[in-house]
Amino acid sequence: MSFVSHGPVVPTPDALGVLRPLPAGAVRLTPGGLLGDWQARNAGATLPHCIDQLGVHGNLTNLRRVTGDADAEFAGMWFADTDVHKTLEAAFWSGSAPAFVDEVAALLEKAQDPDGYLNSFYQDPAHRDRQWNELHYSHEMYTAGHLVQAAVAAARSAPDEPAAQQVLSVARRFADLLVQRYGDSPEVDGHPEVETALAELYRVTGHRPYLDLAGRFVTNRGHGTLDASRFGPRYFQDHEPLRESTEVTGHVVRQLYLLAGAVDVAVETGDTALLETAERLWDSALDSRTYITGGQGSRHRDEAFGDPYELPPDRAYAETCAAIGSFQLAWRLLLATGKVKYADEMERVLHNGIAGSTALSGTEFFYSNPLQLRTGHDGSHEDAPSQRLSWYSCACCPPNLARLMASLHAYLATGGPGGLQLHLYGTGTFSDGGRAVEVETSYPWDEQITVTVTATSAEPWALSLRVPAWCDDARLTVNGNPAPAHAEDGYLRLHRVWHAGDRIVLTLAMPTRLVSAHPRVDATRGAVALVRGPLVYCLEQADVPAGVVLEDLCLDPHSSLTVAFHGDGPFPVTLQVPVRARAVSDTGLYGTWPPAAASGPNTVVTAVPYFLWANRTPGPMRVWIPLASREE
Amino acid sequence: MSFVSHGPVVPTPDALGVLRPLPAGAVRLTPGGLLGDWQARNAGATLPHCIDQLGVHGNLTNLRRVTGDADAEFAGMWFADTDVHKTLEAAFWSGSAPAFVDEVAALLEKAQDPDGYLNSFYQDPAHRDRQWNELHYSHEMYTAGHLVQAAVAAARSAPDEPAAQQVLSVARRFADLLVQRYGDSPEVDGHPEVETALAELYRVTGHRPYLDLAGRFVTNRGHGTLDASRFGPRYFQDHEPLRESTEVTGHVVRQLYLLAGAVDVAVETGDTALLETAERLWDSALDSRTYITGGQGSRHRDEAFGDPYELPPDRAYAETCAAIGSFQLAWRLLLATGKVKYADEMERVLHNGIAGSTALSGTEFFYSNPLQLRTGHDGSHEDAPSQRLSWYSCACCPPNLARLMASLHAYLATGGPGGLQLHLYGTGTFSDGGRAVEVETSYPWDEQITVTVTATSAEPWALSLRVPAWCDDARLTVNGNPAPAHAEDGYLRLHRVWHAGDRIVLTLAMPTRLVSAHPRVDATRGAVALVRGPLVYCLEQADVPAGVVLEDLCLDPHSSLTVAFHGDGPFPVTLQVPVRARAVSDTGLYGTWPPAAASGPNTVVTAVPYFLWANRTPGPMRVWIPLASREE
Repeated sequence: MSFVSHGPVVPTPDALGVLRPLPAGAVRLTPGGLLGDWQARNAGATLPHCIDQLGVHGNLTNLRRVTGDADAEFAGMWFADTDVHKTLEAAFWSGSAPAFVDEVAALLEKAQDPDGYLNSFYQDPAHRDRQWNELHYSHEMYTAGHLVQAAVAAARSAPDEPAAQQVLSVARRFADLLVQRYGDSPEVDGHPEVETALAELYRVTGHRPYLDLAGRFVTNRGHGTLDASRFGPRYFQDHEPLRESTEVTGHVVRQLYLLAGAVDVAVETGDTALLETAERLWDSALDSRTYITGGQGSRHRDEAFGDPYELPPDRAYAETCAAIGSFQLAWRLLLATGKVKYADEMERVLHNGIAGSTALSGTEFFYSNPLQLRTGHDGSHEDAPSQRLSWYSCACCPPNLARLMASLHAYLATGGPGGLQLHLYGTGTFSDGGRAVEVETSYPWDEQITVTVTATSAEPWALSLRVPAWCDDARLTVNGNPAPAHAEDGYLRLHRVWHAGDRIVLTLAMPTRLVSAHPRVDATRGAVALVRGPLVYCLEQADVPAGVVLEDLCLDPHSSLTVAFHGDGPFPVTLQVPVRARAVSDTGLYGTWPPAAASGPNTVVTAVPYFLWANRTPGPMRVWIPLASREE
Repeated sequence: MSFVSHGPVVPTPDALGVLRPLPAGAVRLTPGGLLGDWQARNAGATLPHCIDQLGVHGNLTNLRRVTGDADAEFAGMWFADTDVHKTLEAAFWSGSAPAFVDEVAALLEKAQDPDGYLNSFYQDPAHRDRQWNELHYSHEMYTAGHLVQAAVAAARSAPDEPAAQQVLSVARRFADLLVQRYGDSPEVDGHPEVETALAELYRVTGHRPYLDLAGRFVTNRGHGTLDASRFGPRYFQDHEPLRESTEVTGHVVRQLYLLAGAVDVAVETGDTALLETAERLWDSALDSRTYITGGQGSRHRDEAFGDPYELPPDRAYAETCAAIGSFQLAWRLLLATGKVKYADEMERVLHNGIAGSTALSGTEFFYSNPLQLRTGHDGSHEDAPSQRLSWYSCACCPPNLARLMASLHAYLATGGPGGLQLHLYGTGTFSDGGRAVEVETSYPWDEQITVTVTATSAEPWALSLRVPAWCDDARLTVNGNPAPAHAEDGYLRLHRVWHAGDRIVLTLAMPTRLVSAHPRVDATRGAVALVRGPLVYCLEQADVPAGVVLEDLCLDPHSSLTVAFHGDGPFPVTLQVPVRARAVSDTGLYGTWPPAAASGPNTVVTAVPYFLWANRTPGPMRVWIPLASREE
């Protein structure tokens, strides 16, 4: 078995798939671009912060209790090990924090039971009799899955390092236990995750039983084997077999992780029907259950997709992990099908739903990502705080961000015999065999993306550049000469003999757009969102004149907005938005329609990118702005 | 101590109070009116159903485990005894189900510990060591409170019956234990209820320590003594002392029950500041946190009031028990202050939020009461079902409805030396000392209320008739002669020498009104509700042509609605609503504003009273209808 340096999601050569990922080592995000800045901040701030918090919150101590090296109380959630595994995965992808990696690798090996079991909560003598007995709830395979994913990162990023080999061995022993225990079982875990992990472990090891077990778990689901518990079987996607499903439902992260596993299984087994199922469910999410930020999950109660068109901005749950799951699923579907809509969605959710979850500092995070925070909001609780918090009692999101951002470079481009495809734009270098390009861009602040060929083969090949669906005015020059910019299925495909030094400039015009939602979305009726390029904007109380309540502002859709460029400040591009402050009458909560006309002074307020909200004084925010014409 | 036949809430003679309740025996709802029909249905269907369900779901068996007469597993919620207590209270108010009353009275007496403790969950040997040790969670005093309220009903409705005396003795023993244990304690129960119960027990017994303890619990709250647990201290109203509060917060039923207790304590102790606190918090709820149905609670997650103006129709929680609590609180505030706004709110919540929770059959109930059910709604779970259910795993609402409806007659009128005040209109007889009137009305289907004086004293007295705030055209005749109908502070006060046979006809004009919400209520922007008299109307899928999706209907506010009268059918008065079915474009979930004009065929659909929804084929429903003029 030979190891190759790859990122997450590397289908085997025989797998179904239209596009092939580049080896991760063939992509480097360099300073000066937004994506590279995010990745650098992740390595410099988020990852060290996560490592630190694992100590503060007892996650490592939980494992040391198992090895007999600590005797503190078990701390945190019963799946607290996953925070360790995800942070370890992030460390492998980023190639940093070697002391942490060595320490955790040794700790995991020492804590593992002889049969391969590893879970510090259920290894506690007080809980040992519950092992494998409460699968609807236990997250045991979910936890195993994250261990496996850390091992996959280890194997792909540092195959020769002893710590990486140690983690891979530990993960394989646990995976072997799962194969032995569940290889003929009808059971599944309450929280999907292990499916994609086992498929990836198969890709790393070539050991077919891992893939078979992943497939079995996908198929087992939907037969009501889980104790439906408080939220019913739909919460677990256990209400019907996945292949019969037509709509996403239940807990969003569970649904998305399940679909990611299903796609991995489908492409590795040539199961086109299963792949179509995943596409169908993705469509059902995007058609009626996705926020304009790419966030998903309309309900706090059970962290669930809501009903179709139920998309309240204020109670948007839009969990950070769901946005990450959506990004990872879309990548799998993009590889499998080559359809640009998946890349478009990756861009949207990355630049809004995911990016907005992390503070400028890189050390504070949102778990839920609302699109509106009201005046008078009770932000005293971590379920819906007014500011990002440094950690959560259920801390799934921060280390999930760390592992995604550490591997971000692997999700941007694909390649293969036909050429090189650039899907997401960030300053960096991309190579595929003998071909290489350098990308320079201030995107999405700036409209221009410059691609320079730095190495090439002699034969012609296609450089494919995605034109986002939001852009209806793409322009192109090649070596300074205007070239036709006709996108085909969402990509400009430049097929020719390339020479080192060839310079392609793609300009994606970014006029500010007023966007409205489907009229069945009651929660945003009569309101618009401001969008520039891939970025959704928002209004924050910090930019509103004193004494004016954010909820009272409305927008005349026929007045013109201007774009303001600020260089390298915290808000590189803002919008200047003419608004009217509604004079609020005191007629009470309900009154006879039509209400008395009531308009206050006009003013201009600044809109900032949604992903940068809540980096100043905490206060009200809103993405959707009522239209003045609808206010009579 | 002498017993008098009274309903719930009977302040002592020295208590603060502008209005005095009539003795319950002095009011009788007679057949033919809506309120009387509801009360009759309650006695004939709901109460027997509740008694039956207590058997089915093990509530009585739980108590028999304590007495050694059963050995089944403990069943249901840890506060399952409250379902027994509330059903018992309902039986006392309605004067029916004597076999159930006798059986339960004996069972409670037998199950009670020697020290007075009574709670079948915490008397279980497996849980006994947790007694009084988890007050944030245990509902022990909440359960005691419902026992006490059953005893108050017993004492007021059947003071001479052995079973009533038995229940009162049991409740007093438990109350005495509370006084002994918590008389000097800083602690409180996680769920308020015992405060109002103890104040009422004081009113029944004259035993001052009960009132003192109620006052202590009101004052103790807000000092963070409760384990804040998952939802934070605001959930319990334990974040700040009540007297310092300016806004309702947290779990709605907890907040409302606490305020009911606070009003009882305030009026009995002459604490005007505490009364003002309750009025202030009531205002904060009504000004920005109440649905047009009178329902309260915008969040499923923690059954909480949301932020100001956060009032989503689809995710309205609007728990039935909260509506009941709102009704009971408003009655206390009406008695204390005489302000008509409290009676107006009682009317609204009774005819919409409360009435809508019960099926026509009287044996199925909503727990949450949404104002919208979407096409594609997943109604598979009892958290948000598509239909009323016969019982719930947490079955607080059905027996709460039973006890309210059994005592409904006591909430309609007040009296005293100055005269007789009619607040809510139902066919029946009302007497106060030597004065008596008979009310005949088909209100709220009909505009006309006829009041006939059937007994009177010789001296002049005032008959006061409430004119609801929604009515701006009240007309009056006395003995056939038009009389001035000038309401003063919401009441027509007819002060004169009355004669038996005098006949007053009050006509409250009920044009259909289009009502809009405060513009800060984002969730209903560009939509109106249809209201006639006190009744909110709604559209149901059952009344929409086949193939038309309810979400696609919109209303031209300038077209005219007509009212249709159907006599005694299930829907006595409906509205005929001209609507347009929007032709839905397939531009996706988000698109550039303005969307392409898209209008479909015009049609006329029937709107039915909200409180009667979901009595036919389950399907989508909506109270708020988008305006066609806002649809471009």
